[in-house]
This record gives sequence, structure tokens and C-alpha cells, in this order.
Amino acid sequence: MADALRLFFLGTGAAVPSLRRALPTLAIAFPAETILCDCSEGSQQRLMSAGLSAARIRHILISHLHGDHIFGLPGLLTTQHLLDRREPMHIWGPVGLRLYLEGIASATGHRTRFEVHIHEWEEEETGEVQLERFSFSARRLEHSKPCYGFRICAHPRPGRFDSGEAERLDIPEGPLRRRLLDGESIALADGRRISPNQVVGRSRAGSCIAYCTDTRPCASGVELARGADVLLHDSTFGAELQSLAEETGHSTAAEAAMVARAAGVKRLFLWHLSGRIGEAEDQALLEQARALFPESHLPEDMTSWSLPLVREE
Amino acid sequence: MADALRLFFLGTGAAVPSLRRALPTLAIAFPAETILCDCSEGSQQRLMSAGLSAARIRHILISHLHGDHIFGLPGLLTTQHLLDRREPMHIWGPVGLRLYLEGIASATGHRTRFEVHIHEWEEEETGEVQLERFSFSARRLEHSKPCYGFRICAHPRPGRFDSGEAERLDIPEGPLRRRLLDGESIALADGRRISPNQVVGRSRAGSCIAYCTDTRPCASGVELARGADVLLHDSTFGAELQSLAEETGHSTAAEAAMVARAAGVKRLFLWHLSGRIGEAEDQALLEQARALFPESHLPEDMTSWSLPLVREE
Repeated sequence: MADALRLFFLGTGAAVPSLRRALPTLAIAFPAETILCDCSEGSQQRLMSAGLSAARIRHILISHLHGDHIFGLPGLLTTQHLLDRREPMHIWGPVGLRLYLEGIASATGHRTRFEVHIHEWEEEETGEVQLERFSFSARRLEHSKPCYGFRICAHPRPGRFDSGEAERLDIPEGPLRRRLLDGESIALADGRRISPNQVVGRSRAGSCIAYCTDTRPCASGVELARGADVLLHDSTFGAELQSLAEETGHSTAAEAAMVARAAGVKRLFLWHLSGRIGEAEDQALLEQARALFPESHLPEDMTSWSLPLVREE
Repeated sequence: MADALRLFFLGTGAAVPSLRRALPTLAIAFPAETILCDCSEGSQQRLMSAGLSAARIRHILISHLHGDHIFGLPGLLTTQHLLDRREPMHIWGPVGLRLYLEGIASATGHRTRFEVHIHEWEEEETGEVQLERFSFSARRLEHSKPCYGFRICAHPRPGRFDSGEAERLDIPEGPLRRRLLDGESIALADGRRISPNQVVGRSRAGSCIAYCTDTRPCASGVELARGADVLLHDSTFGAELQSLAEETGHSTAAEAAMVARAAGVKRLFLWHLSGRIGEAEDQALLEQARALFPESHLPEDMTSWSLPLVREE
């Protein structure tokens, strides 16, 4: 599927890795580029295992500076340097990211030949950041440390140009057709005015993924996830550890489901699962979420999920 | 085997990990304690896979501050903190180790509840460091960055006290026997002098492991490995990349074998194998080493090797 996005759940665990669940990292594979959300220890090897090349990563979005979300960054960057990468890498995250990465570079003497652009967010939210193949926005969530959630959207696809209809309307080939495609109305030589919607189909919105971890359920999370195709949301604990979730700035599976429902997303993936959740507890968590939001799923490490680049009509 | 050491080859690769070979880390499991030599990215999970508990690690020896040898340290320490470790951890390595670890702790805010003692070596060699269950010495090797090799030895086991012979010689039970066990000669009430070797068997030397990576073949490596039971030696390249080994401060398999032979070790494990060495090249490397030192071996990741705690007579 060339016109698809594929989400790779490289690590679905939290805080302490287990043999079943590595620490949190999501790869979003576009046809020509892969985005990483967080970069836990061992991510570079799990990318390889998933058949993904780190050379295709141009943007890494870091939620916050707890170790379970960032301890894979230095290795990934060093390996890219050793493999002679030349393309710049952009790493986005909270203030402190530069100190972290530059401290390691100083201590080890590893300086990459390629440029590493570190973008630190100082504000509560970023507004929409337009990039070549996607746009994203980030907002502060509610955690024990400054932490951001993301909404990542594929670009909308322009509507199709209806050549048959253009012929019928006697619109000459060339610049006039281009202006219609670009959304402008035109005037023909005979005085008729043609508006774009007469020959150009409706543009289709790009698919959107919301990534909200680590966090309590909060309004920012709901806003980021509003109408998204997929939401990955903090679901560190089951219902029996509700008070621990509150104390530690995390969510339960049920709380994740409430965010999904409030935001009207199509599908929820429970994310950032505590090592306390063994195989036996998976089903209970899933039931707690599905009671509130039926399209809840609990991914295993190294599984993936595809969705179209643009939304179906 | 309670009276055995077991070496776990947690990662046998070099610089850039591959699916076959993770980055270099050796675990040496004593009956009640595990030592780590280097700590590459993902080591905490590979320890789990090997059935080893990081809680039993009290000493980590770091050869040098290149990322492939140290990017697993922050995750391992953070996990031990989250699992409520209280026992101190000792980390030994070149100057710069403190800057590396404290920089990460500052940026992430991770401060461990247990004490982390960082021991930095400023001299060319450490002399013998006596610890509870083993001793080690470290010496500067020849690499592009200050790098140390290690010789790690289990404690010698005292000879057995021959009670029957002590009875025959009329040595009273108590302090006099203790002094003989401690290696002192004694005088009996009737004037006879008894020397320890009359009632105490020969002490047996502890097994010794030499770990020499990353390095050119060098005199320090030979000294560390002198008569060792096992040598793990840098063997980054095969013979066809001799000049690259020289340029980058590494060794070829044949050079590793020459060090093993010069040092008179019992067994050599080729270590720190470049990602360029595919399965097809393994055999060639091994032949290059065995031509010079027949007891050469090339370990796979996650395999292990046992040896007795004390040397057989």
C-alpha cells in the first residue's frame, strides 16, 4: 500500500522494560519517510527488526525527558553518523533536550557529521508545524514533568481535476487549469466565470494520529485527539491502581477510553503499559477500556497497524 | 555448578548494532554476584533474556567512553532505581565517566535512591583492586580514545587443613591451627616448630578473565592476559581490513590470536566484531585466528561459557 501510513508499535511498555514490552516508541511510516514518537533504549535495533531504516527518519518527536522515552536517542544518532548519514535530523521536544544531547556528545566526543536540529518548546502549545510530508502540533499534557502530546496529520490531498468536464466547458489547457487546481476562480475569454468546484473534486483530509503519553486524562489530550483516526493514550494501569495513576501522573485504561470517547476518535490503542500488567491482566485492561469505548485495542510489541494516508470519504 | 563462573556474551558486535550482534557487553556471573564489562544499549533487556538479575550487579567496568560501550548505563541505573534498589553500585572507568552520567541525571532529573560510586582512572594502570568476591586490574590499551583493558580474577581458595595430620603432630585445636591456616609458622609447647605447608594444602589460584577491547594488539593487552583462563580480545576485522584496523585503533582476528599466544592464555574469544562480518565471514575470521592460536572461538550473541572459580591443579 503506497498510499498508506503504517504505525509500528516498537515498544509498548512503561518505565521498566520487561521481556514482553520494551519502552515506549512509536514509528509512523509514511511512504517516503518515517517519524519517531519518543525513542527508548534499543529503538535502533527494533527499527531494524521491523524492517524500517533509521536513514528515513527526519523528525523525532520527544514527549518528555524521562529516561524511558529518550535513552535510545544517543545510539540512534551515533549509528546514523557511523553509517555516514548526511541528511539533517530534526528532534523536537521540551526544554532540556539540548542539554541532554549535548551533554552526551561532550562526554563521548561523538559529534555527528550530519546536522542535528534541536527544537525546544517553551510554550504550552506549538500551533501547527507544517513540514514536507506532514504537519503536527504539540500541547502540554498533565504529568510529573513537562510533557507534550502530539497530533500528527498527513497532508490533505487536493481534489481530482475533471478533464472531461474542463473540455466540455472549453477551458483551455495550461495556466487557467493550473489556477483552478490551486483553488482560484477564473474568467474565460468569452466572459464566463468558472469556479474551482466546477472541475476540481473535494480535497480529502489527511489521516491524523494523536499520541498522548505520559499524562493524566486532560483537556489538551482531548483537543489533540479530536476526531483523530488513531489515538495512542497513556494507559499505564488498570482500574485497581487508579490512585497510583493519579499520584504518578498517568492514566488507567478506562481513563484513556474516556478521552477517546470525548474526542470522538476512530480507534484507541492503549499505550505505556506498566510492567505490572502481565499477559493475564491484558484482557481485563482491554475490557475496562471497551466498556467505555468499544474500538479500544491493546497492541503487542513489534506489531503494526495500517491506515490510509487520506481519509476515506 | 555453584563453584563456577559463567561468562554471558550479551553483545558481541562493534560500533553499529546488527540483528545478529548487539553492541559489546560481557556479564561475568559469580555464584552471588554478576560483574558487567561495558554496558551497551539494551543490556538491561539482554540481562533479563539471559536470566540474570541486574540487582546482583555491584560493579560495572567500563573500557572507554565510546557510545557503543556505555549507552546502556543510564537505562540500567534508572530501572534499578525504579525497582527500589538500595545496594550501592560501583562503576569504574576512564575520566569523563562522571561527566557523562551526571549530565544525563541533570537533564532527566533521574537521581537514584541508591548510591552510585563512580571511580575514574587517571593513571595508566590501576594496580590490583581487591573487592569482596574478586580482584581486578586495569591498564591503558591502544585506541583512538583513552581505553582500558581488564584482568578480573576470582579470589584464590586457601588450601585445605589436614586435621588428621594435625592430630598426628599433636597440634592443639584453636588459635595455633588458625595461625597455620593463615600462613604463619608456629612453635608448640614442646619446642617443635611447625610450618603451614606441613598441615595446609596448596592454595588454588582463582580463574582469571582478560577483557581487552577496543585496542590495537599491544604489550598492555599481553600483560593483562598473561596466563589467563579466558581472553576476550578486540577482533573487529578480518585480515583483508588490516589497514582499517590500524587506522581505527582496532585489531584483526589474527592480531587477537597473536596476543593470546604471546600471553599463553587457555582460550581466546574473538570480540567486538564489525557489522561487516556476516555469517559467511565468521568462519574465515575463526580460521585466521586458529592458524595462530588453535583455542580461538567466535561467540554468538546470548551464548555463554563456564569455567571453574578456581583453577584445576
